[in-house]
Amino acid sequence: MERPRHQGMAKNTYMRWRLPLVCLLWEVAMIVLFGVFVRFGAEADAHWEEEKREMNLTSDIENDFYFRYPSFQDVHVMIFVGFGFLMTFLKRYGFGAVGFNFLLAAFGIQWALLMQGWFHSFKDGKILIGVENLINADFCVGSVCIAFGAILGKTSPIQLLVMTLFQVTLFSVNEYILLNLLHVKDAGGSMTIHTFGAYFGLTVTRVLYRPNLEQSKDKQGSVYHSDLFAMIGTLYLWMYWPSFNSAISDHGDAQHRSAINTYCSLASCVLTTMAFSSMLQKKGKLDMVHIQNATLAGGVAVGTSAEMMLTPYGSLIVGSISGIVSTVGYVYFTPFLDSRLHIQDTCGIHNLHAMPGLIGGIVGAITAAAATEDVYGKEGFIKAFDFTGMYQTRTPSIQGGFQAAGIVVSLLMALVGGAIVGGILKLPIWGDAAAENCFEDEVYWEVPEDEESDAYHMHNPDKPASP
Amino acid sequence: MERPRHQGMAKNTYMRWRLPLVCLLWEVAMIVLFGVFVRFGAEADAHWEEEKREMNLTSDIENDFYFRYPSFQDVHVMIFVGFGFLMTFLKRYGFGAVGFNFLLAAFGIQWALLMQGWFHSFKDGKILIGVENLINADFCVGSVCIAFGAILGKTSPIQLLVMTLFQVTLFSVNEYILLNLLHVKDAGGSMTIHTFGAYFGLTVTRVLYRPNLEQSKDKQGSVYHSDLFAMIGTLYLWMYWPSFNSAISDHGDAQHRSAINTYCSLASCVLTTMAFSSMLQKKGKLDMVHIQNATLAGGVAVGTSAEMMLTPYGSLIVGSISGIVSTVGYVYFTPFLDSRLHIQDTCGIHNLHAMPGLIGGIVGAITAAAATEDVYGKEGFIKAFDFTGMYQTRTPSIQGGFQAAGIVVSLLMALVGGAIVGGILKLPIWGDAAAENCFEDEVYWEVPEDEESDAYHMHNPDKPASP
Amino acid sequence: MERPRHQGMAKNTYMRWRLPLVCLLWEVAMIVLFGVFVRFGAEADAHWEEEKREMNLTSDIENDFYFRYPSFQDVHVMIFVGFGFLMTFLKRYGFGAVGFNFLLAAFGIQWALLMQGWFHSFKDGKILIGVENLINADFCVGSVCIAFGAILGKTSPIQLLVMTLFQVTLFSVNEYILLNLLHVKDAGGSMTIHTFGAYFGLTVTRVLYRPNLEQSKDKQGSVYHSDLFAMIGTLYLWMYWPSFNSAISDHGDAQHRSAINTYCSLASCVLTTMAFSSMLQKKGKLDMVHIQNATLAGGVAVGTSAEMMLTPYGSLIVGSISGIVSTVGYVYFTPFLDSRLHIQDTCGIHNLHAMPGLIGGIVGAITAAAATEDVYGKEGFIKAFDFTGMYQTRTPSIQGGFQAAGIVVSLLMALVGGAIVGGILKLPIWGDAAAENCFEDEVYWEVPEDEESDAYHMHNPDKPASP
Repeated sequence: MERPRHQGMAKNTYMRWRLPLVCLLWEVAMIVLFGVFVRFGAEADAHWEEEKREMNLTSDIENDFYFRYPSFQDVHVMIFVGFGFLMTFLKRYGFGAVGFNFLLAAFGIQWALLMQGWFHSFKDGKILIGVENLINADFCVGSVCIAFGAILGKTSPIQLLVMTLFQVTLFSVNEYILLNLLHVKDAGGSMTIHTFGAYFGLTVTRVLYRPNLEQSKDKQGSVYHSDLFAMIGTLYLWMYWPSFNSAISDHGDAQHRSAINTYCSLASCVLTTMAFSSMLQKKGKLDMVHIQNATLAGGVAVGTSAEMMLTPYGSLIVGSISGIVSTVGYVYFTPFLDSRLHIQDTCGIHNLHAMPGLIGGIVGAITAAAATEDVYGKEGFIKAFDFTGMYQTRTPSIQGGFQAAGIVVSLLMALVGGAIVGGILKLPIWGDAAAENCFEDEVYWEVPEDEESDAYHMHNPDKPASP
Repeated sequence: MERPRHQGMAKNTYMRWRLPLVCLLWEVAMIVLFGVFVRFGAEADAHWEEEKREMNLTSDIENDFYFRYPSFQDVHVMIFVGFGFLMTFLKRYGFGAVGFNFLLAAFGIQWALLMQGWFHSFKDGKILIGVENLINADFCVGSVCIAFGAILGKTSPIQLLVMTLFQVTLFSVNEYILLNLLHVKDAGGSMTIHTFGAYFGLTVTRVLYRPNLEQSKDKQGSVYHSDLFAMIGTLYLWMYWPSFNSAISDHGDAQHRSAINTYCSLASCVLTTMAFSSMLQKKGKLDMVHIQNATLAGGVAVGTSAEMMLTPYGSLIVGSISGIVSTVGYVYFTPFLDSRLHIQDTCGIHNLHAMPGLIGGIVGAITAAAATEDVYGKEGFIKAFDFTGMYQTRTPSIQGGFQAAGIVVSLLMALVGGAIVGGILKLPIWGDAAAENCFEDEVYWEVPEDEESDAYHMHNPDKPASP
Repeated sequence: MERPRHQGMAKNTYMRWRLPLVCLLWEVAMIVLFGVFVRFGAEADAHWEEEKREMNLTSDIENDFYFRYPSFQDVHVMIFVGFGFLMTFLKRYGFGAVGFNFLLAAFGIQWALLMQGWFHSFKDGKILIGVENLINADFCVGSVCIAFGAILGKTSPIQLLVMTLFQVTLFSVNEYILLNLLHVKDAGGSMTIHTFGAYFGLTVTRVLYRPNLEQSKDKQGSVYHSDLFAMIGTLYLWMYWPSFNSAISDHGDAQHRSAINTYCSLASCVLTTMAFSSMLQKKGKLDMVHIQNATLAGGVAVGTSAEMMLTPYGSLIVGSISGIVSTVGYVYFTPFLDSRLHIQDTCGIHNLHAMPGLIGGIVGAITAAAATEDVYGKEGFIKAFDFTGMYQTRTPSIQGGFQAAGIVVSLLMALVGGAIVGGILKLPIWGDAAAENCFEDEVYWEVPEDEESDAYHMHNPDKPASP
């Protein structure tokens, strides 16, 4: 770590022993806990032949693997390429965007398999996992990737690992409250993933407020090619979002319907985003920041309701509105949050995840409250909302109320949890960089020294381009 | 819009009110029409439980979703990342390539769901949609993306939206004529998508001929990294083309066979493309333009016949020939079309889609005409060509004749439709740029200002950055 | 070919007649051989309707296509985008990395369909192909892509085509010995793909040793954006590796289990890679070379055992170890191999494929030897190791011994085969470049001449590049 030493606000960003220690500690803990707890579920265990006979299944195609694995892979791409590349828009932080996202997600999915497993797949002292657990682990980590978007460029990899540990834990608790205690539907995670993840991240970045961040303002923008790299992330998120919202829905019509609703919502969202991006700029030109982000709001905003009978035109309406809200957010709210509330939101997750997530929760509550046996069919109605057992007396309007409660719980968990975790991350031991070194890969990465002075000058900001 | 104002042929490219207006108008129309017409098909509706019982299905895995959704997602990637990034090869038009492709496709799929729905999925006053409709909508938009390739860099986003509106309409009419009236097979769209889309686009660009286009000639080339971005598009198109050609084929052997034939055709196409790319250049070096485009001709050229018993070696032959034709086209035909016929074809869609599309139609007609009960089996023969109902007396040779007629109809629809739509797009109200501002993102996009002028120098290591 | 002519060690790299000749010869041979031998397998043939009846299948969903096609597409992406872009890290060899990988893989899959077909799918004089053959052909070519990594930047496209011809042949023989004669399990190819491919490539590069390679040392590094392009390759390999290891496993639990084990192994591998990357550098910074490569070692290292009852925590342990071994390899072994053993390994395949491949083989042998009926269930045990027919008396410990023998056979085939093929490639007729022109696209590609010396000034068109 040479650069900071020469500078005024030098901070110790030396990672050599701290980062390996945390990584290896975390991983050893995972190995021990997996050894004690995690086993294959019935459909992934070699005893499946017997299981099949017992469950009276005639074909291997009935294995849940074939219902969900293609969606799982799409979700997997969204987490690692989607979120990773979406954040490469910064001109000097591409390595950190893709690399740290990779690191935190790889750790997070392991811890999520455990946390979610204890809550949802625990049987006779063991967590039994299958493809649905993999999807849920990816989902959980998705909420961490979202929060990462708010603090992008301002934290050390150790802080990210610490945040991941806590956020995955809180996510799982919140998810348990919503899905099991409140019996809320949220297959695409408008509440559990987006609302929770975004407000958690916004609270963390508020606690970590850096008054001198304008010192690195020149690095907060994009360059031409970094904007194209970011579009890779955008498009993979956009294209695979129908898989995201349908991945853990019930087999059959629910998965099918989720995909269609999400497809429609996303399509309409693109048009309103483009419209408002042009309309809100004096010159009428389109802004890549909006195209990269607000076009995705439509997926977030049908996260809860996509598996319900939202209908294609309902999806178009929700998508249209969320594109507008998100674009307006980038133009007006983000600067406001920054200057007035001291919330420095690098990627604008407030516009892409927080507001659309709230919309998604509300739309879900309304759609649930408006459900009728007529629209769903008698059996479909019970199946869609799982009105069985202790919930068989629930009515749609009561369900709508519980859905609304789910939004509030997620918000509270995010704000309280984010404040606490933010406080922990503020401790001066995690190796974050000084304000003037934010958004700069060189702090934590070996950046190629382009031996000929001209190659890419950005990596040596000290040396003038033309001596 | 500052720059044009300083220049001679200034045009008004100010989008601030026009683009939002068109986007929002289009989207409101979609919402109204979806509200009136579009509902979930039986397999995506919550009544599916009852439907299953009626159709005597024992498992949710029989839902069409599980037969087609993985292929749908591959097709989706082809449309948005494949076509989008393929067109980023231009050094200064990456935002427009990816962004406008995103815009027109997102609008186009909505309008295609309606148009194709009225023709093919209309029941009791409603359009009932499922995953197959999503694929078909993506297919339809694929033909618009192809046409976009011809006019890339020379049109305003409004023109693209207007063109999409008309082209989707004409596509659907043409598709209806071919599939329903002529009872033609064209699962991979050699005729309906490629021949139609390409000749439509070529006619449009002919009508929009710009005599002074050489004023922006310096921007019509690529730079090193833009060629790599384009390869992302190429490879995704190439890899997923087996899904494209098999996505809407009959369940079972037909989907399986389509994928194999397409895989073989594409593999052989790469080798002949590389061979001719090297052979046709004095220095014997390979040209990225050919690798990016002509390697895909093999997928186009088996679009009609892939689901038939073309056989793997038949596919190799077709792929080999189309690679040669396409590469030769880039070297000899494109300059000829430009200088003699005044057809300015930015991406060379004549070589990648028009000629291979025609080959595909012809190969399909021959393969159909050569079909025998011996090769297909009695049941397979009827199933493959759907020789049931009013078509049960059709013979292979008659089918071959109808297939050939399908090519002609597609061509005529494209030429006539393209001429009319081209005329509409020529109106001076759509905000296209002056010739010297073509192929330039700055006209319609906020382009990041790289504050240090040296940003990226690496491609000219010999020349010092600061002389 | 201008540049070499001006230089001392000029070599004739003129491809104009040689490359087309080889490409066309190879392709014509493929067409003839496919014509004689290759036909559709039962599940892709139009006689499938009758087949279904005979096999007593009630639904088209039982077609192997639906069990394996999504995994096939993921594997396809790994071969073409994964390997192709992983190798774009070199600053001036992106075209060669993606383009030559494309060329050799497109040829290789055709030849692999034949070679593997003769060994495994030959019936009544015909090779009957289906989706599993496509996957196996991609796998086989994967081993060539691995070997390509060792010689990247130092060979002509003709050499690559010649190497592919021989390597695919040897791969198929080796695979036949392992799978059929030794009755070894290796679904993810730790031995057949990685160990064989890597040691083959390392031997070839040893034979082709270039004493003066430091003349092009300035081009052996990366630049900022080439490292990001390489991350596209890395992430697609990483994300889709669960599909790779499960693609040809038995239907049902085996595919499901393979995916889970691989997911776990890869996740843990990322953490140990990051830990050791930071730990082994004085400055404690992360190195993109490690992140791009060593994070994948976890997939290689469970290639044999993923479909067995390795268990999730077993996978975490294997993944952790392989990440460490691989990262240590990059820091210490690669320089050693280069300076002492004269093995110039451009991509470090020794660290990513050779050592993890050996680990994978050993872990597979141990896991097989440790198998019990208790863990697998009586039926599951027989099914997992295919202990039927002439193998019904095999015990786990004997199976473990055969697995170990498979490692040795693969190693020997690779070393002997690599030496012979290396010798053939050393002949001075193939058009490889002089040492000072290695790692340079300009030798074989038309590289865009950025006519304005400022390449990417586009964002400031008003300001002159050189004031």
